[in-house]
Amino acid sequence: MTNLQWIENGSVSSVPGFKAAGVTAGFKRSGAPDFAMIFSEVPCDFAGVFTSCKFAAAPVQFDRAKVLKGGKLQAAIINSGIANACTGFQGLESAKESARLAGIALNISSDLVAVASTGRIGVQMPMPILKRGIDAAVAALSDKGGENAARAIMTTDTVPKATALQLEISGKTVTIGAMTKGAGMIDPCLTSPHATMLCFIATDAKIDNALLQSMLEKNAQDSFNRITVDGDMSTNDTVMILANGKSGAAILPGTPEATQFQQALLLVMQNLARRMVGDGEGSTKLVTIEVVNARTTHDAKIAAEAVANSLLCKTAWFGNDPNWGRVVAALGYSGAEFCPDKCDVFFGSIPVVLSGGDAGTPEADLLDTVKAPEFTIRCDFHDGDCSYWVWSSDISYEYVKINADYHT
Amino acid sequence: MTNLQWIENGSVSSVPGFKAAGVTAGFKRSGAPDFAMIFSEVPCDFAGVFTSCKFAAAPVQFDRAKVLKGGKLQAAIINSGIANACTGFQGLESAKESARLAGIALNISSDLVAVASTGRIGVQMPMPILKRGIDAAVAALSDKGGENAARAIMTTDTVPKATALQLEISGKTVTIGAMTKGAGMIDPCLTSPHATMLCFIATDAKIDNALLQSMLEKNAQDSFNRITVDGDMSTNDTVMILANGKSGAAILPGTPEATQFQQALLLVMQNLARRMVGDGEGSTKLVTIEVVNARTTHDAKIAAEAVANSLLCKTAWFGNDPNWGRVVAALGYSGAEFCPDKCDVFFGSIPVVLSGGDAGTPEADLLDTVKAPEFTIRCDFHDGDCSYWVWSSDISYEYVKINADYHT
Repeated sequence: MTNLQWIENGSVSSVPGFKAAGVTAGFKRSGAPDFAMIFSEVPCDFAGVFTSCKFAAAPVQFDRAKVLKGGKLQAAIINSGIANACTGFQGLESAKESARLAGIALNISSDLVAVASTGRIGVQMPMPILKRGIDAAVAALSDKGGENAARAIMTTDTVPKATALQLEISGKTVTIGAMTKGAGMIDPCLTSPHATMLCFIATDAKIDNALLQSMLEKNAQDSFNRITVDGDMSTNDTVMILANGKSGAAILPGTPEATQFQQALLLVMQNLARRMVGDGEGSTKLVTIEVVNARTTHDAKIAAEAVANSLLCKTAWFGNDPNWGRVVAALGYSGAEFCPDKCDVFFGSIPVVLSGGDAGTPEADLLDTVKAPEFTIRCDFHDGDCSYWVWSSDISYEYVKINADYHT
Repeated sequence: MTNLQWIENGSVSSVPGFKAAGVTAGFKRSGAPDFAMIFSEVPCDFAGVFTSCKFAAAPVQFDRAKVLKGGKLQAAIINSGIANACTGFQGLESAKESARLAGIALNISSDLVAVASTGRIGVQMPMPILKRGIDAAVAALSDKGGENAARAIMTTDTVPKATALQLEISGKTVTIGAMTKGAGMIDPCLTSPHATMLCFIATDAKIDNALLQSMLEKNAQDSFNRITVDGDMSTNDTVMILANGKSGAAILPGTPEATQFQQALLLVMQNLARRMVGDGEGSTKLVTIEVVNARTTHDAKIAAEAVANSLLCKTAWFGNDPNWGRVVAALGYSGAEFCPDKCDVFFGSIPVVLSGGDAGTPEADLLDTVKAPEFTIRCDFHDGDCSYWVWSSDISYEYVKINADYHT
C-alpha cells in the first residue's frame, strides 16, 4: 500500500492512547523480565482468536468467554514462565483473580482486563508473584514501554518481536502496533473465539468488536495459521486486538476503508508470524512451501503442511541437503489428491522434479539455494488452479537440546 | 500360545525349503552388504501390503501388480542404497529387468520374482551392479543365509532384524521366519495391495493367496502400522509373505488352525515391528502410548498417534523429562473427541494427570520410569470402551545428525 509506513522500533505503545510495560515479577528463575501489561486510556473495542487445543489453558478459557460476551477491554496482562494450563478450577480462579487485581491496581473494572500466560504446563499461578508483577507494571507503564513488554513475554525466543505501522484512512492517520512471542510448540490453529504463541495488537482505529473479530479470524488464516516450527499446537495460543478509536478514523463493514485497514492489519500479523518462524527454537532458516495448481485449496494445504512438518525434510534443510526425495515422499503421503506423474518441484527457481521424476539438476547447482537463510520450495501439481503456502523452519541439534532440557 | 517356540537366531532361512543370501553388490559406497535374495525350492502362495504414499517406488508398483494378478512367487530380491523411487518409466523398466535377470540366474520364470529397494530416492538403478548382486547371491544361497540377508537390507539400521518361530498345527510343525529393516522414514500405513520399511516373511504352511492376504492386512494393522519413528511414511514400504506348503499343514479360512497361524504370524510381525522402533534412527528408548476408554477406536487412535508423533514429547523423552504437559497438549490438539476434565494420564503405573489436572506426583518419583529404556504412557479418557496403542521412539541429537548428513 502506498500510503503505508512502518514505524522504526514500533510496538503496541506506538499507538496513540496505549501504554505498555514489561517487568520482572519472578515467574522465571532466571530473573529475566516475565510480566507485561498493555493499557489503554479509554475502554476499547476488541476481538480474539484462540487455540483449538481441547486442553485450553485457564486464561484462554477466561478470554474466550470475554470475546463471546462482548463489551469492552482496556488492559491486558501477560506472564511468561507459567502457562496456567491443566490447572483445573483453581487455575480458572487464578485467572479471574489476576484480572481483579489488575483492575484494582489500574482503577478500572476487572471486566475490562484480559489475561494471558505462557510457559510450563500444569503449574498453579503463584499469586504473590503475579501481584508483584501487576504493581511493578502499573508503575512502569509508559508510551515507550512496548519493547519491554515484548521482551517480557518471551520464553525460548531469542529476540523480542514487536512492530507498528501507520496508514492514512479517510484523511486520518491510523496506527497499528503489535507484539508476539513464540519459538516452540508452534503450529497454531487459531479458531473463531476459541491459538503458545501470544500476540497482542493495538490500534487507534474506530472499529467495532464484530468487524474486528471477522478481520482477525480471516487474517489469522493467512498469517499465524500458516506457520509451523515443530507441528505442536499449544494449550495457550492467543491473538487479541484492542481498538481505542482515538484516531477518529471510522472503519465500517464493506467499505474501502475496511479493506484498507484489514490489509494493513494483515501486514502486521504476517510480519510477526514470519519473525516467529525465523526465531523458531534452534532454527537456522526459513523455508516457504508453496503448492500451486492443485485441484482444491484443501489438497494444496495438506500437501504443503505435510512437507512443512516432515522431520526428514526439516533435518535435510538444516544439513543444507537438497534432498527432494523427502519432499516428494511427504507430498505423496499427505493425503492430497494429485497425479504424481504431473508433479514438478522447484528449489527456488531451479527445477528438481519434472513430471514426477528427477529433473537432472546436479546437486552442486542447488547448494547456494539450500544454504541461504531463506528459500522457497514450490510444488506444481498441474492439476487445477488452487494454491496454498506455509512458512516452516529447519530442525537442528539446538532444537533437540532446547526441548530435551526445557523444564521452565 | 503354549505350543509355540521361538528359534534362536531364527530367520527366513529357518523355514524348511527356503534359502537366502546377503552379499555386497556395490550399491553402497561403504562396501557394506547391500543385496539380498530369498529363494524357495518350489513356487509359493504369497501376499503383500505396500505403502500408501502416492509416489510409490517402481518396485512397489511392480510387486503390487503381482499381488493383484495373483499366481505364485518363488524368489525375492532386495537391494539397499537406492530406492528406485521417482524414477519414472525407466525405473519401472529397471524393476522388470531385475526380475528377468534374477529369473534367468535362478532358472525360473521371471513371473515368480518379487523386487524391493530401499535407499536414496530419485536415482536410477545401476543395472550392472544389480546383475553382479544377483550372480553373487545365487552363488551364496544357503539355508543358513537368513542372517546375511537381514544384514544386506539395512540402511541406517544399527542391527539386523530377523526372527523365526515354530508351532504345531494339526500335528504338523509349521515354521514362520522373517526379516525386516527400517530405522528412519518410519510411519508405515500399509494398505491393501497397495509401506521404507521392508519385511519379508517365509513360511512352510500350506495356505492360499487370498487367506494370506487377509491375514497380512489384518496383522499389519496391529504391528507395522502401530509404529512411528519420525512420522514420515516412505515411498518403498513393503511387507510380503511367501508360503511354500512344505509342512503339509493346511490352513483353511475360518478354522481354528487359521486363527492359530494368524496369531503366530502376528507375534512374528510384532517382534520385528517393535525391534524397528527400538532401532529407530538415533533412538534411545521405546515408548508405548496407550489410549483407553475412548468413545471410538478412531478417537483413541488419533490421540495416541498425536502423542507418538509429537516432536516436543519425543525430545522430552530423550531428555528423561516427565513433561506430561506436552502429552496433554498433544491429546488436546489431536482432534479426538473426549472430555479433558475426565482425562487421566499415567507414566508407567504412576498417575501424572487426574481428571485433567496435575496429579501432584513429584517429578523425582517419575525419573526412574522415564529413564528406563522402555516405558508406557497410558491416557484414560473415561469416556467409552475403545482403545488403541502405538509404539514410538524418542528423537535425539543423533537423529538430527543422521538425517542432516544422510545422502546415500
